Amino acid sequence: MSERTGRNTLLITVGDVCGIGPEVALAAWAAAPDRGKLCLVGDVAVLRRAMAWLDLRLPVARLAGPQELAAVPPGCLPVWQPEGLPEDLLVCPMGQVDARAGSAAALCIEAAVAAIQAGHAAAVVTAPIHKEALHAAGVDFPGHTEMLQALAARAAVDGVLPPVRMMLANEELRTVLVTIHCSLRQAIEQITTARVLETVRIADAALRRVGIARPRIAVAGLNPHAGEGGLFGDEEILQIAPAIAQAQAEGIAASGPYAPDTVFMRARDAAGHPGEFDVVVAMTHDHGLIPVKYLGVEQGVNVTLGLPFVRTSPDHGTAFDLAGSGRADPASMAAAIRMARRLIAAG
Amino acid sequence: MSERTGRNTLLITVGDVCGIGPEVALAAWAAAPDRGKLCLVGDVAVLRRAMAWLDLRLPVARLAGPQELAAVPPGCLPVWQPEGLPEDLLVCPMGQVDARAGSAAALCIEAAVAAIQAGHAAAVVTAPIHKEALHAAGVDFPGHTEMLQALAARAAVDGVLPPVRMMLANEELRTVLVTIHCSLRQAIEQITTARVLETVRIADAALRRVGIARPRIAVAGLNPHAGEGGLFGDEEILQIAPAIAQAQAEGIAASGPYAPDTVFMRARDAAGHPGEFDVVVAMTHDHGLIPVKYLGVEQGVNVTLGLPFVRTSPDHGTAFDLAGSGRADPASMAAAIRMARRLIAAG
Repeated sequence: MSERTGRNTLLITVGDVCGIGPEVALAAWAAAPDRGKLCLVGDVAVLRRAMAWLDLRLPVARLAGPQELAAVPPGCLPVWQPEGLPEDLLVCPMGQVDARAGSAAALCIEAAVAAIQAGHAAAVVTAPIHKEALHAAGVDFPGHTEMLQALAARAAVDGVLPPVRMMLANEELRTVLVTIHCSLRQAIEQITTARVLETVRIADAALRRVGIARPRIAVAGLNPHAGEGGLFGDEEILQIAPAIAQAQAEGIAASGPYAPDTVFMRARDAAGHPGEFDVVVAMTHDHGLIPVKYLGVEQGVNVTLGLPFVRTSPDHGTAFDLAGSGRADPASMAAAIRMARRLIAAG
Repeated sequence: MSERTGRNTLLITVGDVCGIGPEVALAAWAAAPDRGKLCLVGDVAVLRRAMAWLDLRLPVARLAGPQELAAVPPGCLPVWQPEGLPEDLLVCPMGQVDARAGSAAALCIEAAVAAIQAGHAAAVVTAPIHKEALHAAGVDFPGHTEMLQALAARAAVDGVLPPVRMMLANEELRTVLVTIHCSLRQAIEQITTARVLETVRIADAALRRVGIARPRIAVAGLNPHAGEGGLFGDEEILQIAPAIAQAQAEGIAASGPYAPDTVFMRARDAAGHPGEFDVVVAMTHDHGLIPVKYLGVEQGVNVTLGLPFVRTSPDHGTAFDLAGSGRADPASMAAAIRMARRLIAAG
């Protein structure tokens, strides 16, 4: 294996096998240009079943790792089935929480990260997992983001969790979240000057990396009307405004805090509606995700910023109600692959 | 004055004279069909000035009250200037907080409500006011909604504040808010089973009144992923779900709690995207307003549900930066007038 080989390789973990992950991963792979750098990470039998649902007939090239990708003949589906996957994944009932599916999903993610850390790949695109299935398998992360953060920390010299943030992006809007998977009460407690500033810095660095020279960063408030001068809460005054001032002192083009209800509309960049900002830093999960998802999730991509490697994912879940039908829309997965490629190319 | 005369009359309060209220009220009036039932409530000199900005040349019919509307010749602007308005409103600097402007705005609203209560009109459409100007004038309501609620209570037999809720609506989406003008911390404390249930009932009654036989009411959660089964907060389990169950027991087609980040997308009713719900009950001001405003505020209308009369308003503010330019978009004001007419016709 050479550094050169792995530098452009993109791993696609198939997610929870009881959800739509395998079928959207496969469909997005099949529709992608330049498939030579893409490698699926998952169970071979599960992917063969998904091929049948999608009416795809392809030989499978079973790899011992992504470093074998270069040897895969065109027209073959390259699948890396990591060692130690549960044997009986095909018997897991579709559309249900299953510990075996959770265990397999976690193992694929761990294997993908290890391959990246070994230099065999540059990025991971993750199909959806199911938190309850992970939990049933004894893997207690609230989501991919936290799991990837822990895996990155394990390999870090200092073992410290890298500060990561979730960015959601579609063609019109980017948002980076200060808080994610916790109750709204806990989220409010987490909104500190240090955390907001760190989010602004991470957002700024990430957008510079993809070629925006001086990203225009709108920082949303937490409270209605961004607190209305302190009448509706003081987090804007005590926590958020000082973070913006510090970011500005560092040369970052941050501004705000803006009223949450209009800042996303102002940042929206669409035909006839040039966006005022390149990204909105949102205080809560739903302030940020509501507008990104409003026009349809099929375009949304989730990017984890702050990891030592590129990671993207679709912004939908396992969609248990659709799983196994072959009708799940692979558009968000395809967008996640495109975004990962752009980030690798820029990096 | 006869009941018949006032039944279809719609009063338009011009709002804060230092903001865009007078010009958007005037522009929306000028563009409205069937102007014979519309009466502006505000300062005559201020409206003459706004006419100049808009390059409108019309004689003004100064009324002693909306009951004189029937006598106004076509082509005249009917203005009711309530008794006691400050004398010097033209000297209030545009785009700034001014106690006189706040005082005038409050007085016009009070007069309009009194006229409705006297049977001289059926509805009020309110142009934007500025909370700080109201406050400077010693009128301490956080917004129109609370002020109208207090005015309604003053006239009620029992003097009790009627339970009101803010509905925001555009062509694609309706949302009714459980909490509005307070900090997010306070909003969380206000989310009780009783308050959520009352909101669902008010939303159901309001939509039945406009002709939806059995409104499909989606109740959003408060926390990310609607609490993820209690992992990210317990308000869904302890407060929201019991309210939904009770509403269902009353025959209301309520469902949820749904994840806040996708419920608005699911309710969105657009070409090629039929909405799954007729309205979303949102727990916080910004969960509800972010999606309604995302595609542009010019289409949004604010409706106060639960008052003993019809009240609508545009969903934008005083826009001090635009005030006096004649360039403010009157589309939301025009939509508010249309909505008020529909509600009067249905009532």
